[in-house]
Amino acid sequence: MPSYTAPVKDMQFILHNVLKVTETGIPGYEDLDEGFTAAVLEEAGKIARDVLAPLNVSGDREGCRLENGVVRTPSGFAEAFAAMKEGGWTALDCDPEYGGQGLPYVAATAVGEMFISANMAFNMYQGLTHGAYSAIHAHGTAEQKSTYLPKMVACDWTGTMNLTEPHAGTDLGMMRTKAEPQGDGSYRITGQKIFISAGEHDLAENIIHLVLAKAPGGGEGTKGISLFIVPKYLVNADGSLGDRNALSVGKIEEKMGIHGNATCVMNYDGAVGWLLGEEHKGMRAMFTMMNEARLGVGLQGYAVAEAAYQNAVAYARDRLQGRAVTGTENPGGPADPLIVHPDIRRNLMDQKSFVEGARAFTFWGAHLIDRSVRQGDQAAEGMISLLTPVIKGFLTDKGFDTAVAAQQVFGGHGYIEEWGMSQFARDARITQIYEGANGIQALDLVGRKLTQDGGKHVLAFFAMVKDFIKENEGDARLKPGFLDPLKKASKDVQAAGMYFMQAGMKNPNAALAGSYDFMHMMGHVCLGLMWARMAKAAMAALDEGASDRDYYEAKIATGRYYMARQLPATAMHLARIETGAEPVMALPAEAF
Amino acid sequence: MPSYTAPVKDMQFILHNVLKVTETGIPGYEDLDEGFTAAVLEEAGKIARDVLAPLNVSGDREGCRLENGVVRTPSGFAEAFAAMKEGGWTALDCDPEYGGQGLPYVAATAVGEMFISANMAFNMYQGLTHGAYSAIHAHGTAEQKSTYLPKMVACDWTGTMNLTEPHAGTDLGMMRTKAEPQGDGSYRITGQKIFISAGEHDLAENIIHLVLAKAPGGGEGTKGISLFIVPKYLVNADGSLGDRNALSVGKIEEKMGIHGNATCVMNYDGAVGWLLGEEHKGMRAMFTMMNEARLGVGLQGYAVAEAAYQNAVAYARDRLQGRAVTGTENPGGPADPLIVHPDIRRNLMDQKSFVEGARAFTFWGAHLIDRSVRQGDQAAEGMISLLTPVIKGFLTDKGFDTAVAAQQVFGGHGYIEEWGMSQFARDARITQIYEGANGIQALDLVGRKLTQDGGKHVLAFFAMVKDFIKENEGDARLKPGFLDPLKKASKDVQAAGMYFMQAGMKNPNAALAGSYDFMHMMGHVCLGLMWARMAKAAMAALDEGASDRDYYEAKIATGRYYMARQLPATAMHLARIETGAEPVMALPAEAF
Repeated sequence: MPSYTAPVKDMQFILHNVLKVTETGIPGYEDLDEGFTAAVLEEAGKIARDVLAPLNVSGDREGCRLENGVVRTPSGFAEAFAAMKEGGWTALDCDPEYGGQGLPYVAATAVGEMFISANMAFNMYQGLTHGAYSAIHAHGTAEQKSTYLPKMVACDWTGTMNLTEPHAGTDLGMMRTKAEPQGDGSYRITGQKIFISAGEHDLAENIIHLVLAKAPGGGEGTKGISLFIVPKYLVNADGSLGDRNALSVGKIEEKMGIHGNATCVMNYDGAVGWLLGEEHKGMRAMFTMMNEARLGVGLQGYAVAEAAYQNAVAYARDRLQGRAVTGTENPGGPADPLIVHPDIRRNLMDQKSFVEGARAFTFWGAHLIDRSVRQGDQAAEGMISLLTPVIKGFLTDKGFDTAVAAQQVFGGHGYIEEWGMSQFARDARITQIYEGANGIQALDLVGRKLTQDGGKHVLAFFAMVKDFIKENEGDARLKPGFLDPLKKASKDVQAAGMYFMQAGMKNPNAALAGSYDFMHMMGHVCLGLMWARMAKAAMAALDEGASDRDYYEAKIATGRYYMARQLPATAMHLARIETGAEPVMALPAEAF
Repeated sequence: MPSYTAPVKDMQFILHNVLKVTETGIPGYEDLDEGFTAAVLEEAGKIARDVLAPLNVSGDREGCRLENGVVRTPSGFAEAFAAMKEGGWTALDCDPEYGGQGLPYVAATAVGEMFISANMAFNMYQGLTHGAYSAIHAHGTAEQKSTYLPKMVACDWTGTMNLTEPHAGTDLGMMRTKAEPQGDGSYRITGQKIFISAGEHDLAENIIHLVLAKAPGGGEGTKGISLFIVPKYLVNADGSLGDRNALSVGKIEEKMGIHGNATCVMNYDGAVGWLLGEEHKGMRAMFTMMNEARLGVGLQGYAVAEAAYQNAVAYARDRLQGRAVTGTENPGGPADPLIVHPDIRRNLMDQKSFVEGARAFTFWGAHLIDRSVRQGDQAAEGMISLLTPVIKGFLTDKGFDTAVAAQQVFGGHGYIEEWGMSQFARDARITQIYEGANGIQALDLVGRKLTQDGGKHVLAFFAMVKDFIKENEGDARLKPGFLDPLKKASKDVQAAGMYFMQAGMKNPNAALAGSYDFMHMMGHVCLGLMWARMAKAAMAALDEGASDRDYYEAKIATGRYYMARQLPATAMHLARIETGAEPVMALPAEAF
């Protein structure tokens, strides 16, 4: 069975050596000193290792069961959920006004990574609740907030997001779920929603569904959509639970993975709901939470990969097979460990350099969200808005690839469920699909984010990369291994952007046909920038006489690997992009 | 539920327009005229569509069950297996002396693709039998052949290959299974084998296990290994079944996919076995079948991708979501079909251009095997020996990627099991692992095949590519879109080979660290060559006034896509390779 050890040291390095959180001046960051974050991360790591990880494989095998309208979560989930609540882990970055601990989002992100690595399916019950919490917190009335938020912060009540319908996924404008105003402020919600994660389960007293539906008079398409609070049990004026609402779970889906989380078909049969935010502006309310939700999925992508990587390393050290081509390394044993073989190394270095780069990228993204939310920093908001589709799309694509690569290290043992490596690949796969399939992320990036506010944010991104290179060009230790490849990759991305501007003006397909490649190019440049920053920070630590030299030297070597072996991908993506729309669109639909 | 339609037209194109099989002079190929192959392929396509495909999803869900030592295959498998036998589909390319139909391997490969696309797990029962048939046919005594082969050709008895042990996978030299000679020509086999596909089941009267084991006096490592025939039921002199042999199934594995095939732990407790081939030369006997077996796995890789692709296309045409950015294309409907969107096109073109290129490559490989076996052509044998790891490694990596890409087209519907797209991805995954994990294929290619016979075969390969380019350079329709990219990619591969020679002499790790990239470069050049040949053949057909112009024009456009959008990958692989061993091997094992 897989094991998990929280990468506390690596997180501390990013928080304190790279982001230098206490020096940022962001309100709340002054508390994040090394001692405090170490204590939080160590404690969270223990929960992840001892409480959540042991339920990962068993949760996958057992799955959720629907019995007489009640969904039973796998054995042990209820006890683990209670432990999470008791420890206050559900409330980390929530508003203290409603019982939260008010920590910055970057801290919650670090803890979240651990919980996801240990047990992604389990963590979703809390994750969805946090999403619904954020929506009510941002758009709810004072009464709605006081009614729902304290219970949701504590996870006594959990939350869901109801968007998809059988015929309406990405294209929400086609949704049919209706909301009829009752004249007393309430609505009756009728329709069917599918793919509702944590839609029904036995972990909480109540479930607060947030449901997109069409109220009369809103017009066609997405304009007519409003967002509603639809609780499983109605809440009395004194906060106690009242009648069962007219909603039910139709079935739970058989899925490729995340079996421990119940993915439900939800039927609303005139269920009582209350408007959240403004009528007919439900899409806008949804969008305000999107950066955070999509960053959370990118986090899942690399967090599962981290867990898979850890187990691949352990297996590669332990499994004896063949002899090193440069001479026996384990003369006392019948064979050398897998880790001596160059192609196993290549695979492990791909994994390690991705996961550590992705962690830095995601923490930086969370830091930008904090800067935007806690300081009202428009530039930070613009930057994270630009980078969100990259975090979501690139990190989940590469996260899945990494989980698959980790599985490969196990040979046949990776394919059987006994070792748990198949589960990492199956679980990671959903992250490329939900919260906007990755093709939609690419479309969002190229079709919307690049040109947003006159292209201001992407220009700011390139300027930032350029400035970093310029500032550090004098450092001979950084220049050839880090700055030169970063400059080259950044130029490739800019050339692609230029191509989109020129060719896309004549034919929008010329830009959109290259959108997926562009998303990956941006991802490589972002990870390249993170690696250059991390290398600089590691060198500084060594210069300052840090005691754990091995850690910093490994960090620099891992970064050098990423720059040398991964960044060359940008030239390939550029070459593809510059072939334009013609090869992609040449075939008539019937010729496929 | 997924559907499947056999790509008869495309297979005919490769056989007759590209390979021009009847003009090759290979014995047996003279019968493969267009009418004959069309009849065989049409008939096989019906079986695939009507008998095998309907059992694919149900076989996955139901899986195999072990009950009191007996393995039950999924419902319907026994009837379908009987239909396959009855139709003679198990005997296509087998020796007529033992009841086979004596067709060339290239024809059996085409039919095999269909059966795999329709139901990979089911097809393995026959596939393993064919492998065991080939081993006995190549190395058996006259008596062994007459005893076993007629029953195996008819699939009344099936076969297995027993190599892996719990602690010995790739490194077979460590195996512990023992064979003790009994002085009467027989041996007693004792040991445990794992991952035995079709090790036990209810489809056949008898199961003929081929088991690698160590007989006394053979020395250490792989040198001491011999191959044994160990039947489940001993066979009496008159061919009737005798006593049950001392072997049993320990358990069946829970796997990520191919649930319809029983993957068994097999226990041999002093089971009676007979030497197949020479004592202590079991590895050599295994290796003679390896080209065929590995080509068969490459075939699985793209055959599953073909099935996934077909269903992705159908969904992309059917599912209405969003509007084309260049203007509404389905004004009568609530939205346009997915296939109008450039990124969906990009994805489908990736799939289509891979599968069709892979088919041509694999058929060409089968043709080389026929040339080698039926004509004793050493050059053909050398060429297929070189290309086998590419067919196995590259086509299964890309086949899995393609199945995943096809799943992505379905969005959330791809993740739930209902649509069957998850199964294609889960089934395809094993092809990267078994019959030598793909890292081993890369090692075989770079560490052995490149330098085999003084590098003669790889030089012959490059000469062939060069000659093709030279011969066709005058054709302005081929030059920019096909020959120029092929030349560029071929130069990249040669540069990588040169790097290996120079750097690898000083440090073998410098070559092995780049082996995986090299395997993929070679794959791209092979598919590029195939696409150039196919484009040439399609242009010729158009010039000759072919009636189905749409087919040939689509073929050329698909080829142009592959050359423009996939071949640029070779430059990336070369850049990676040229960074050498240092980035890959820099970290000490304990720093991971």
